[in-house]
Amino acid sequence: MQQDLNTRRIEAFSDGIFSIAITLLVLEIKVPSADMVQRHGLALSLIYIWPSYLAYIISFATILVIWAHHHWVYSAIKKSDLKLIYWNGLLLLFVTFVPFPTGLLAEYLLHSEAKVATSLYTGTFLAISLSFHGLWRHASANEKLLGSETKNATRITYHYRLAPIFYFASFISSFYSEATGIALCLLSALYFAVGGWPRS
Amino acid sequence: MQQDLNTRRIEAFSDGIFSIAITLLVLEIKVPSADMVQRHGLALSLIYIWPSYLAYIISFATILVIWAHHHWVYSAIKKSDLKLIYWNGLLLLFVTFVPFPTGLLAEYLLHSEAKVATSLYTGTFLAISLSFHGLWRHASANEKLLGSETKNATRITYHYRLAPIFYFASFISSFYSEATGIALCLLSALYFAVGGWPRS
Amino acid sequence: MQQDLNTRRIEAFSDGIFSIAITLLVLEIKVPSADMVQRHGLALSLIYIWPSYLAYIISFATILVIWAHHHWVYSAIKKSDLKLIYWNGLLLLFVTFVPFPTGLLAEYLLHSEAKVATSLYTGTFLAISLSFHGLWRHASANEKLLGSETKNATRITYHYRLAPIFYFASFISSFYSEATGIALCLLSALYFAVGGWPRS
Amino acid sequence: MQQDLNTRRIEAFSDGIFSIAITLLVLEIKVPSADMVQRHGLALSLIYIWPSYLAYIISFATILVIWAHHHWVYSAIKKSDLKLIYWNGLLLLFVTFVPFPTGLLAEYLLHSEAKVATSLYTGTFLAISLSFHGLWRHASANEKLLGSETKNATRITYHYRLAPIFYFASFISSFYSEATGIALCLLSALYFAVGGWPRS
Repeated sequence: MQQDLNTRRIEAFSDGIFSIAITLLVLEIKVPSADMVQRHGLALSLIYIWPSYLAYIISFATILVIWAHHHWVYSAIKKSDLKLIYWNGLLLLFVTFVPFPTGLLAEYLLHSEAKVATSLYTGTFLAISLSFHGLWRHASANEKLLGSETKNATRITYHYRLAPIFYFASFISSFYSEATGIALCLLSALYFAVGGWPRS
Repeated sequence: MQQDLNTRRIEAFSDGIFSIAITLLVLEIKVPSADMVQRHGLALSLIYIWPSYLAYIISFATILVIWAHHHWVYSAIKKSDLKLIYWNGLLLLFVTFVPFPTGLLAEYLLHSEAKVATSLYTGTFLAISLSFHGLWRHASANEKLLGSETKNATRITYHYRLAPIFYFASFISSFYSEATGIALCLLSALYFAVGGWPRS
Repeated sequence: MQQDLNTRRIEAFSDGIFSIAITLLVLEIKVPSADMVQRHGLALSLIYIWPSYLAYIISFATILVIWAHHHWVYSAIKKSDLKLIYWNGLLLLFVTFVPFPTGLLAEYLLHSEAKVATSLYTGTFLAISLSFHGLWRHASANEKLLGSETKNATRITYHYRLAPIFYFASFISSFYSEATGIALCLLSALYFAVGGWPRS
Repeated sequence: MQQDLNTRRIEAFSDGIFSIAITLLVLEIKVPSADMVQRHGLALSLIYIWPSYLAYIISFATILVIWAHHHWVYSAIKKSDLKLIYWNGLLLLFVTFVPFPTGLLAEYLLHSEAKVATSLYTGTFLAISLSFHGLWRHASANEKLLGSETKNATRITYHYRLAPIFYFASFISSFYSEATGIALCLLSALYFAVGGWPRS
C-alpha cells in the first residue's frame, strides 16, 4: 500500500486541489447588486467592492506560494507513509477552506466587525503554515522518507520554519488592527515567494 | 476498446472528480447573512454556523478516505471491463452528489427535522460504500482483471467489506438520533483511515 | 505546433473539462427553501425536487458516455490538426454548457412551460452529438490523422453515427411532450453506454 | 529548486487552472427568475438573456486560444526560472479572474452603463495579453530558458506580439461603444485562433 500510494499520486491529487481552490476564489467576487448600482453607478460600485479584489489577490498569491513550496518539499520526499498522508490531508483541508474566509473578508472588511473577519482569514493561513510545518517536520525526522538530497532538505527547513511565526504575528495583530493583519499576510506571501526561495 | 480505456485513464478521470468534489464542499459554507450579523455580531454568527464546519470536515475526511481506498484497489486491478466501468461510474455519481447532502446537513442540523437531513447524508455514504463494494466484488471475482498481487487483494476484501455495515448502522441510527448517525459517520471515516489500512 | 499540440495534451485538457463539468452538475440541485420546508416538511420538500435528481442523473450519465466515447475515438486518432482542435473546442463548449440547461430543467420541469426547458436540454445534447460527429467525420476522412487501426475506426463510425439521429428525435419530441423528450434522452445515454459499445 | 519546478509541472498546474476557469464560466449564466418568466414566458426569457450566451462564448473562445498559445510557447521553453514563474502566476491570476467580468457583462450589457462593464471585460483580456507578452519577452531574451528550436521561437514572437495592440484597441473603444469593444474582442480571439497560428 505505502509503495502504491506513492508521492507521485499524492502530488497529482494535491495539485488538482490547489488549482481548483485557487480558481474557486473568483466566485467570492460578487457582481454588484442592482440596488447598489442604482445608487452609485456601476463604475463606483465596482470600486467600492475593492475588498473583494484585495482578498482575491492575497489568497491567490498565498495559495500559489504554498503550491510552489509543496512541490519543492515533495521533490525531496521520496517515500510516503500514513502520517505523511494525514499531514498532507490536513494541509489540503485548510487550503480548500480558503475561499470561505476570502469571501467573508471581502464582505466584512469595511464593516465595524472587520477584525473578526480578518482573524478568521489570517487564522486560516496560520493553520496552513502549521500543517505544512508538521508535514515537513515528520518527513525530515524520518530518514526513510527523504531521498539523498539532504543538503536541499536542510535549506528547506531553514526557510519555511519562519512561516508559522509570520502568520502567527499576522493572526495576533488582526485582533487589534485589520489593516496590520492583512498587510502582514500579504508581506508574508511576498517574502516566501522571493526571499524564502532557495538559491540553487 | 477495453484495452484503450485502461485503468490509468479511469484513475486519472476519477482523481479529477474526487479532487473537484472535495473542493466544492467549501461552497456549502455560506457567509452569515447581514441580518444574522446585525442580531448576533459576526463572531457569534460564525460560531452559530458550526454545523457547516462539521459537515465540511466529515465530508472532506470521508472523500479523502474513499480516494485513498480507490487508489489502493486500483493498484491491484490491472485490467478493466464494461461492468467495472459502470460500477466506477456509479461510485462517482454518488461522490459528486456529496456536496448537496453536505449543504443540506449544514442548513438543517439545528432544525426540528434534522433527522431527515442526516438520513440523506448518511444514506449517500451508504450508497458510496455499496457501489465501492460492488466494484470490488466484480473485480475480485474476475481473475482477468486482477494482477498477480493476490495476497494484497485478499486483505483488501477483508477490510473494506465492513464499510457497508458501518454506513448502514449510521444510516439506520439517523432515523432515531441525528447525533448518533453523524458520530457513526465520522467514526467510520476515522476507522477506515487508520484501522482499515493495510499493514504492508 | 501541430506536433506539439499533440493528442495527449488535448486529451488531458478535455478530460479536465469533462470531469469539472460533470462535478458542477450537483450545484444545480438547490437546498429546499425555508419557506417550502415550513409548508411541506423537509422530507416531502426533498421529494418534490425530484426533477433536480432526474436532470442530475441524465446529465451525469450522458457526459460520462461522451467522455468514454471521446477516449475511444482519440485512441484511434494519432495526430491532430487545426480543424480537429476546432471541432474538439466546439464539443467542449457544449459540454461545459450542460450545467445551465440541467439547472433550467430542474427548475421548470413541473412548470407549465416545461417543453421550452426540455427543448433547450435535449437541444444541447443534439449539439454535442453533432459536434462529436463533425470531429469524427473530419478525423476519419483524413488518413494522416488516424493510426493504422482502421478496423476499429470503421466500427466507431458505424455506432456513433446514430447519436445525432437519436438526439434529433429527442429534441423534436420535446416540443410535443417533455416526458417523451427526456425519456428518449435517457434511453440514448443507456444505448450508447451499452449497445453502442464496441465488442473487441 | 529551479530544476525541480520544471516546465512540465508548471504546465500541468496551468492546464488545471485553464480548464477550471473555462468550465466555471457557465455558472455566470443564471436561470431566468420566476418573476421574469411570469411576465415574458420562459422562451422569451431565455432569449432576453442573450448577453449571457455572448459573454460565455467570447470568454470560452479567448481562454481556449490562450491555452493553445500557452502550450505552444511552453513547447519552446525548456527551462524555468523565478521570473518566469511570476509572469506565469500573473497570467493565471488574470485568467482565473475572467468569470467575474464575464458575469458582469452578462448582467449589464443591456444596461445604460454597459460601457463600464465592457471596459472591465476587455481590460481583463488586455491584462492577460500583456502578462503573456511579458512571459514571452522574458523567456525569449534568456537563451538558457529556450531550447534549440529558435526558428519556431522567432515566429511566435512575431505573431503574438500583436495581441496587446488588439486588446488595447478593444479596451479603448469600449469607452465609446460597447458593441465595438466586444466585436474587437471576439475578432481578436478569432484572429489568434486562425491567423496567429503557426504554419509548420
